[in-house]
Amino acid sequence: MSLIRSWVDTANDPTCPFPLNNLPCGVFSTAALSIRCGVAIGAFVLDVAGMEKAGLLAPGDGPLLNTPAWNPLMAAGPDVWDRLRRQLMGHLAEGSGTRDQVEPYLHPLDGVTLHMPFAVTEYTDFYAGRNHAFNVGTMFRGPENALPPNWLHIPIGYNGRASSVVVSGTDVRRPWGQLKGPQDDAPRWAPSARFDLELEMGAIVGQPSTGPVSVAEADAMIFGYVLLNDWSARDIQAWEYVPLGPFQAKATATTISPWIVTKAALEPFRTQTPAREKPLLPYLQEPGPMLYDIALDVELAPGGGDASVISRTNYKEMYYSAAQQLAHHTTSGCPMRVGDLLGSGTISGPVKDSRGSLLELSWGGQEPLSLPGGQTRSFLEDGDRLTLTGHCQGDGYTIGFGPCSGTILPALSDPFAR
Amino acid sequence: MSLIRSWVDTANDPTCPFPLNNLPCGVFSTAALSIRCGVAIGAFVLDVAGMEKAGLLAPGDGPLLNTPAWNPLMAAGPDVWDRLRRQLMGHLAEGSGTRDQVEPYLHPLDGVTLHMPFAVTEYTDFYAGRNHAFNVGTMFRGPENALPPNWLHIPIGYNGRASSVVVSGTDVRRPWGQLKGPQDDAPRWAPSARFDLELEMGAIVGQPSTGPVSVAEADAMIFGYVLLNDWSARDIQAWEYVPLGPFQAKATATTISPWIVTKAALEPFRTQTPAREKPLLPYLQEPGPMLYDIALDVELAPGGGDASVISRTNYKEMYYSAAQQLAHHTTSGCPMRVGDLLGSGTISGPVKDSRGSLLELSWGGQEPLSLPGGQTRSFLEDGDRLTLTGHCQGDGYTIGFGPCSGTILPALSDPFAR
Repeated sequence: MSLIRSWVDTANDPTCPFPLNNLPCGVFSTAALSIRCGVAIGAFVLDVAGMEKAGLLAPGDGPLLNTPAWNPLMAAGPDVWDRLRRQLMGHLAEGSGTRDQVEPYLHPLDGVTLHMPFAVTEYTDFYAGRNHAFNVGTMFRGPENALPPNWLHIPIGYNGRASSVVVSGTDVRRPWGQLKGPQDDAPRWAPSARFDLELEMGAIVGQPSTGPVSVAEADAMIFGYVLLNDWSARDIQAWEYVPLGPFQAKATATTISPWIVTKAALEPFRTQTPAREKPLLPYLQEPGPMLYDIALDVELAPGGGDASVISRTNYKEMYYSAAQQLAHHTTSGCPMRVGDLLGSGTISGPVKDSRGSLLELSWGGQEPLSLPGGQTRSFLEDGDRLTLTGHCQGDGYTIGFGPCSGTILPALSDPFAR
Repeated sequence: MSLIRSWVDTANDPTCPFPLNNLPCGVFSTAALSIRCGVAIGAFVLDVAGMEKAGLLAPGDGPLLNTPAWNPLMAAGPDVWDRLRRQLMGHLAEGSGTRDQVEPYLHPLDGVTLHMPFAVTEYTDFYAGRNHAFNVGTMFRGPENALPPNWLHIPIGYNGRASSVVVSGTDVRRPWGQLKGPQDDAPRWAPSARFDLELEMGAIVGQPSTGPVSVAEADAMIFGYVLLNDWSARDIQAWEYVPLGPFQAKATATTISPWIVTKAALEPFRTQTPAREKPLLPYLQEPGPMLYDIALDVELAPGGGDASVISRTNYKEMYYSAAQQLAHHTTSGCPMRVGDLLGSGTISGPVKDSRGSLLELSWGGQEPLSLPGGQTRSFLEDGDRLTLTGHCQGDGYTIGFGPCSGTILPALSDPFAR
């Protein structure tokens, strides 16, 4: 697959994250335009809601796009997803006869406000990165017991909190919580001192299910992907998580990137999951490549300081694909719904500077990370700005996700000291 | 508090679950009436949506009741909750001057279909029963390590799956899942052979929050309570739950009773949580009684057989109240929303026949339960009908919840053998 040229010049730059090949789905507003669906192209967002109203787009039988979320379009099904992509390709391709009609619907990206691209119905977070699970397990249980016995058989996941999912750019307030360190005699109420990021991808369920689905069916249910940062309070987590799993440690916020990159745009970058260390039960076996080759960076900018890359890895490091996770999610008959969000689990590569969390990068705080300018980090500090970026490298073009950013605000003064 | 008499004769029977003191909130339909909000009174459901349309009820500034869920009324806030209760009391009290206008809105309960009373936004399940935690802990880790170290300090909870919550009367299909028993060399794909109930109460969040709330504020956010059965596949749970908690084991279904009994109706039955074994951190301390004295029964009817009571206990056995659970839920800044459902955790009393799960009643299957007629049960069998009931005993009246029932259907033939 090579670049598909557009009359939107900025979309033809090989480093532009939003070429015609991409067409990611976001939600935007301007001073003049109410919140609505938009598609990124070059340096612009295309007001697809306005185009639908004007009769230039008709992906479904009725209006689907003049809403503050892509859920209605997703619910309309894969034929409608394909039809929208074909109609947009037709309008935006080099030489298109509708250019004069479409051009008024382009708004410079730097003049719009981006919002949550979809309504999160429920949020599930997985633990499907082999290196992350091994690193964390080694820290807590030693290398010989690092992986739980079920890890190579089940894409382990837990239900997260949909209400806490926010769009890139939303500040993140350091949480208070109940903590008990190894040195404490009793638990105490304090701000988290080990607040961390988790570099993940998020898969968005675009079609519902009512019973168990196969991995192939699960893949067909996925609408697209976003970058995802599952902010985690390690000290709260350590005290609360046995026996029922993480709860308040993961409920402060989860940040996603503002553009849903569709499965159609990612198609050329499909790749196999790594070789199995133990055979999977048949219901989890993949009929084809269902991971994606997506290069991922984590940047940290201390308050007032310059950003530097603290980790560099790739989504293809995951042991389980989103399709496998979704298939497993349905085994018990658990109904899945349009807008469900599945976090991949932390994506860590095999070497130190490819680890997807500060817990791993600083080895539990024992080996603080050195930043340019002389600062060090074991965990996140107030004022830190954390940004995930991701892209697929095509032949002369790039599929980008837009940044997934958040700045750490200091904890409130004790919310119960009234 | 004694019986408040109504001109609806059946509501004055001291054993009637729905006296004027109760006024629980449900959603119903009939052949002639579309799905809408209703309130139970005596042997009838009152079409409050119709009354609102006719101008006989006006709890809020605009229409709130002609919808298939109580979420809009809940969102309107406690003043509106109170106003609705006062308006209904006025119309239905003995000697009311509006009896002739109201009577046409009564529909016999046995002629209506009941639906989910509210839209479940997110569902959180707790583990807050002291006896249940001790029993389960003893089975898995021995009595000296039964309670996890955090148990007496935190109302431990995990996020459940809102999409799986169903109303009483919905059949429950035995799930398939990935299992590995102690005798198995490798995990296998099989129907759950240890499918169980969990007797719980559910608290319904009626007001949102954006930051940490106190226990008193949390209590004020709760709209009402339902009975809740958190169906659990123990064999799936045992293999999957370390380290991130229960997932597919709890995602087949959770059944709730069809009537939300409001906090106002439960007010006379408030009771203290049991004495603390260890002091709680200040943010979890209760300023007043926040549990309720609610007698609870579990009935089991084998396919085609008679029902018998297999457990009898009380909600006041819980170590943590719903208000404490909700306050803890907000500590990290986790936003709570209207329609969030909090399961109490399994309610087990101190003696054998007061245990709230078959896991405990049969002691992990080692001591099968004898049913009348000679059958025994370690876990649920296909065709079993399980019913939870609950009531508060007032002075000459009863506050009932309506049954919380489900019948176990056999597992599908292998859903992946195609």
